[in-house]
Amino acid sequence: MHVLVIGAAGMVGRKLVGALIQSPTLLGEEIDRLTLADIVAPESPAFAGRVDSVATDLSDEGAAAALVATRPDMIFHLAAIVSGEAEADFEKGYRVNLDGTRELFEAIRRESAQSPYCPKLVFTSSIAVFGEPLPPTIDDTHGLTPLTSYGTQKAIGELLLADYSRRGFLDGIGIRLPTIVIRPGKPNKAASGFFSGILREPLAGMEAVLPVSEDVRHWFASPRAAVRFLLHAAEIDTAPLGARRSMTMPGLAATVGEEIEALRRVAGDKAVKLIRREPDPTIVKIVSGWPQNFDPRRALALGFEAEKSFDEIIKAHIEDELGQG
Amino acid sequence: MHVLVIGAAGMVGRKLVGALIQSPTLLGEEIDRLTLADIVAPESPAFAGRVDSVATDLSDEGAAAALVATRPDMIFHLAAIVSGEAEADFEKGYRVNLDGTRELFEAIRRESAQSPYCPKLVFTSSIAVFGEPLPPTIDDTHGLTPLTSYGTQKAIGELLLADYSRRGFLDGIGIRLPTIVIRPGKPNKAASGFFSGILREPLAGMEAVLPVSEDVRHWFASPRAAVRFLLHAAEIDTAPLGARRSMTMPGLAATVGEEIEALRRVAGDKAVKLIRREPDPTIVKIVSGWPQNFDPRRALALGFEAEKSFDEIIKAHIEDELGQG
Repeated sequence: MHVLVIGAAGMVGRKLVGALIQSPTLLGEEIDRLTLADIVAPESPAFAGRVDSVATDLSDEGAAAALVATRPDMIFHLAAIVSGEAEADFEKGYRVNLDGTRELFEAIRRESAQSPYCPKLVFTSSIAVFGEPLPPTIDDTHGLTPLTSYGTQKAIGELLLADYSRRGFLDGIGIRLPTIVIRPGKPNKAASGFFSGILREPLAGMEAVLPVSEDVRHWFASPRAAVRFLLHAAEIDTAPLGARRSMTMPGLAATVGEEIEALRRVAGDKAVKLIRREPDPTIVKIVSGWPQNFDPRRALALGFEAEKSFDEIIKAHIEDELGQG
Repeated sequence: MHVLVIGAAGMVGRKLVGALIQSPTLLGEEIDRLTLADIVAPESPAFAGRVDSVATDLSDEGAAAALVATRPDMIFHLAAIVSGEAEADFEKGYRVNLDGTRELFEAIRRESAQSPYCPKLVFTSSIAVFGEPLPPTIDDTHGLTPLTSYGTQKAIGELLLADYSRRGFLDGIGIRLPTIVIRPGKPNKAASGFFSGILREPLAGMEAVLPVSEDVRHWFASPRAAVRFLLHAAEIDTAPLGARRSMTMPGLAATVGEEIEALRRVAGDKAVKLIRREPDPTIVKIVSGWPQNFDPRRALALGFEAEKSFDEIIKAHIEDELGQG
């Protein structure tokens, strides 16, 4: 089986590639070829089969067609300009997140017109497709009302995925990822950055800023869970999905206060004291429009599983990133 | 005020232009210029102000920019490849319904980057954005799950309209039209054609075919109501809409049986006898996935109004199309 990962140099992409190499089987078939694509050439990992590392921009003319010409059996499409950048640079966000995705789907459609070809395609969407007014708990039939250009581009990607699947050009499944915590690495400027920062920095003995109040509730999963979602999406039979090819992934609905209490249980008061409260009205306002809780019944019925507590999320971070048991 | 109507040669477009000429005022301003655009040049009606009739295809390079360069204050965007054709010709549907709409919005954005410009834009969407599984009554928060490429393209248009409005490039409002009955003119091949045909043909003394059973329920409004919706959308203040710029228009939820009984009341048994029952499994299947009833609370609160009975719809047709009182 030939697997193409687009966005392979990103945080989730790298972890997905690692998991594919560790257990190189999908749908009962051995993976003998990996094509890893991103805007910069992803690192080529050690792998028994063939690995091609490609620097490419899907929105460039011919770029998607070149990737698809190798007829990968399985495509993970993770590439995206993130929320903050898509908001700051309107044209770039639409070019990469909308045009890039559409070029990929179009390249597959054109390839399938040459001779039969219908790859499985896992598309990462986001809970950013939801925006106020929102009910306290969002169910699987709730409308997509994005409040950012990024959320709009992801919602359009979901619609295209469903139509291209319905027409038989590809076999798509879209998974709306929760906010991923704990993101490894340095603090970033994303409005959601503090959800990771208030755990990651104290766990490393550094100070972190909390810009919102402790009663803010949100929807979380670990990087590990994100990789599990992607692999499970690749494995499941899409026939029962009907026309609704995208769905919200399970997650943990928790408040910032619950996050902090989990940190206290795992790392003690000393760690919690490193969190500095510094309310930021801009972030408070942005976060107030975000979803708080979901009833992801479809995904649960299909066997997707997330963490049940922040303790689990923190422990996964310690095991995966801090090299401690 | 300069009003641009895109899709001015279509059935609803022509009626809208007629209404604008009959009462040439919008938002308290006199209309002194009309630009009428369509794929074929629309007829130039008698009008006191300036009228430009333009044959253009929005998806052609530079076409949208040329229309927008005249800086219309109000834009009605009605142009679309209809459902059946967008399904039969995938590329044409996406080119006209998606690329054409996006080119229009992009042309406005680029124009607004030159010097302040933010036209009001009324976008016609459709209840084709909804598809099974559907509840018996669809409320304003229900998700868009189109089952056709046309419905997908309209749903994407709604998402773009909301994002371009949120970013301040245009002041958009999207209205999801019910199935329009009675469409004047000849029978067509649209799956929904019979809803009009079983009234229009018998009213003209001709036979009509009914391909579904009498208990099929659907959501209707007259061409008159469609024009009223467009004019009302142009008039209302969009500030209270928030980020949700599109909404389902009010309509009449009625069964085919109720349609037929209204025909009997207006035109007698003789007319009803001209309806020939000829079940068509293909049409039965298509129609079974269509919405049956809505709770269009937002639109009602904003003052949109539809017909309350099929008798009204039939009488409007007789007055407007058959030249009888």
